[in-house]
Amino acid sequence: MEYPSKLIEEAVTQIARLPGIGKKTALRLVLHLIREKEENTFRLTEALNRLRSGIRYCRQCHNISDAEVCTICSSGRRDRSIICVVENTNDVMAIENTAQYTGLYHVLGGVISPMNGIGPTDLKIEALISRVNEAQSEVKELILALSPTMEGDTTSFYIHRRLKELPIKVSVIARGIPVGGDLEYADEITLGRSILGRTLFN
Amino acid sequence: MEYPSKLIEEAVTQIARLPGIGKKTALRLVLHLIREKEENTFRLTEALNRLRSGIRYCRQCHNISDAEVCTICSSGRRDRSIICVVENTNDVMAIENTAQYTGLYHVLGGVISPMNGIGPTDLKIEALISRVNEAQSEVKELILALSPTMEGDTTSFYIHRRLKELPIKVSVIARGIPVGGDLEYADEITLGRSILGRTLFN
Repeated sequence: MEYPSKLIEEAVTQIARLPGIGKKTALRLVLHLIREKEENTFRLTEALNRLRSGIRYCRQCHNISDAEVCTICSSGRRDRSIICVVENTNDVMAIENTAQYTGLYHVLGGVISPMNGIGPTDLKIEALISRVNEAQSEVKELILALSPTMEGDTTSFYIHRRLKELPIKVSVIARGIPVGGDLEYADEITLGRSILGRTLFN
Repeated sequence: MEYPSKLIEEAVTQIARLPGIGKKTALRLVLHLIREKEENTFRLTEALNRLRSGIRYCRQCHNISDAEVCTICSSGRRDRSIICVVENTNDVMAIENTAQYTGLYHVLGGVISPMNGIGPTDLKIEALISRVNEAQSEVKELILALSPTMEGDTTSFYIHRRLKELPIKVSVIARGIPVGGDLEYADEITLGRSILGRTLFN
């Protein structure tokens, strides 16, 4: 498609790089922005710039956070004896939405995936080990809530092996979630049940 | 939904203001941007800022353009005796894609819509009248290619009435397009035929 302006072409190209947005949708968004007031576009771009340069991570659970320690880690009402290990912030939000879990979290920032060149050292696994080691008397259980894919299973297995000597329970969430699916798309009931029905890591 | 960071919440709010994007999609985009390299976000926001502050319109047809006169208006290969009147840039691009039209354009920037407080003076109708008046010997025909809605028909009727005294043909594109539909969603064959099969504005 030929665009009437290089500025439009460039904006379309940049927007179409986002996941799930094609060139046609990108063009619609661009023309919408042009029709709207200038300040709306600037508000959008400012929010994105601030987001990208100002984003911080909780020192303890590595979830996205505004403070040095996130609201969940610093809350007095959470059960500090359980840590739920997840891949991403999306997963923390999805589990929080089920209102079935009151423990803490640990965000790995991904899963082990040799295909994509992601090894254990690229994730917050070492941080998890030392966190559990330091709070050994406090932490009773670790729930592995990773996506039931090859990579997720590999990561669960790796973490379980690394923690074998420690006297804590390691469980995985129940496989109520369709195998091969993505945690963030599961409905709240299925996801909530999978937390309640977790089984011991053999 | 509760967000782990105010920065995320603000970015989601701003993205979800765009048409066709909900909060869930906005969150996915935001988390995607966070995972990616910082420079990708900055490239996106820079393209949008440049777009919004640098956009210019063709002096003659009022389409979006990089130069003072757009590539279509300044081309030596276009038929200067026909002007196609459209609502938006989208429509110009859609008609150009059919490769059925070799004349010039005139972009109104909308249609008359009393419901939304848009009257003839809010559009480039006066500019169209003087353009046709100035080039009376050159312009033989005006094609009204507005969406076949109440507002589009009103606008076509208004323009036709304003040009009644001038010795030029005024035609409308054939109603091959479903009534109530939007011009930019029509397929290329239907849209191309509607240009070829245009009828005289009775």
